[in-house]
Amino acid sequence: MTGSLLSPAGLETELRAIGAERYHDRHPFHHLMRDGKLDRGQIQAWALNRYYYQARIPAKDAYLVARLPTPALRREWRRRILDHDGEDENTGGIARWLRLTDGLALDRAYVTSTTGLLPATRFAVDAYVNFVRDRSLLEAVASCLTEMFSPQIIAERVEGMLRNYDFVSRDTLAYFTPRLTQAPTDVAFALGYVKQHADTPEKQALVLDTLRFKCDVLWTQLDALYFAYVEPRLVPPGAFVPEKAAR
Amino acid sequence: MTGSLLSPAGLETELRAIGAERYHDRHPFHHLMRDGKLDRGQIQAWALNRYYYQARIPAKDAYLVARLPTPALRREWRRRILDHDGEDENTGGIARWLRLTDGLALDRAYVTSTTGLLPATRFAVDAYVNFVRDRSLLEAVASCLTEMFSPQIIAERVEGMLRNYDFVSRDTLAYFTPRLTQAPTDVAFALGYVKQHADTPEKQALVLDTLRFKCDVLWTQLDALYFAYVEPRLVPPGAFVPEKAAR
Repeated sequence: MTGSLLSPAGLETELRAIGAERYHDRHPFHHLMRDGKLDRGQIQAWALNRYYYQARIPAKDAYLVARLPTPALRREWRRRILDHDGEDENTGGIARWLRLTDGLALDRAYVTSTTGLLPATRFAVDAYVNFVRDRSLLEAVASCLTEMFSPQIIAERVEGMLRNYDFVSRDTLAYFTPRLTQAPTDVAFALGYVKQHADTPEKQALVLDTLRFKCDVLWTQLDALYFAYVEPRLVPPGAFVPEKAAR
Repeated sequence: MTGSLLSPAGLETELRAIGAERYHDRHPFHHLMRDGKLDRGQIQAWALNRYYYQARIPAKDAYLVARLPTPALRREWRRRILDHDGEDENTGGIARWLRLTDGLALDRAYVTSTTGLLPATRFAVDAYVNFVRDRSLLEAVASCLTEMFSPQIIAERVEGMLRNYDFVSRDTLAYFTPRLTQAPTDVAFALGYVKQHADTPEKQALVLDTLRFKCDVLWTQLDALYFAYVEPRLVPPGAFVPEKAAR
């Protein structure tokens, strides 16, 4: 269903309305985590699964760089690859995420092997990477717009975890600190791009659908964690079982 | 046809034999250019068409980064994207190539529009980018191995052009200077990767076929230039015609 053409500001309002309804800060698993209601095994399961999302982000961004038509646009987007892969083995978003899984006493080789993932995590993350590789450039750019809402969930998560879990420290949560400044920079460009290029009702509908899709990608990951590790606690065959893998 | 397993050094020997037979330093168009036998219009046609190759290189490399499995491998390969796109509008390989087309009095908007390309240039270059996007990672990495042979053709080209053409200066040929150091660094990694990972006769055959394919990509571009601008001088409809587009 396609409506009439929105102004750029009107499009942003619609995007924010989707975030308010569908972003994963509304998911019960996030609320449990934030409020100190999870045990260490459940936090381990979250960090282990979320590792796969982190590990695939540079691939997603490199596909986007490959599809951008000019050096200027590619320079803008490639920063994300550099932020995430870092300058060496000890820097960048992926390395910082591994400091979190280390801090949670997960074996690093087990984490990076991704053999303990919930299948739903892999399917959701791969759907995101493939979306960026295969859909229109406008949709590919729009798929990062969940970053509009990430500073708030990060702040809630970090504050809640530091307050509630003695097995989590500010150092193990180092991943999130740079994201508080990187995400707004990144999303400012993407939101500007989308507001400029979504210049027909059809393209605006695609952009709004893309944000719904991306919210689904994030939401589905928390659904799967909730199902396997909170209620009804049915861990799929082969997936991480907290008691076993903790050192 | 697949033979027996070669040693890594034996594989390199075979690769060098393919280069000796098929690399485009053996193409008559290169010989004419090097020996001062082309006029300005023919050099313009070469620079205009080759621009498309330069402009698509970062896309090819970003597809490769997207497919590499680890931050360490991606960091190694992303350097190529940075080298080519530069830090701003005035740096990097593409910007330096535009200094060459500027120096040849080609209108920059016309060059970057790529509307004057020979269709064969577009087909060959797109075939290369799609190869890197779609084939196995080993083949994608191996497709850059023509860089093993590029320092020699660059040296010949620069020396020959500076000696023979008064419309070419060391400044307009600035593209090539960094390539003399970048290409050996880049290819050292790729050759090492290929020698390590092509560990069956089948994979070695794929690697050798890949180098043949990539030599074809380069050779075909010079065939098309020769056909349109040297002999029989049949410019395809819509492609660059020297007298018209020169300022």
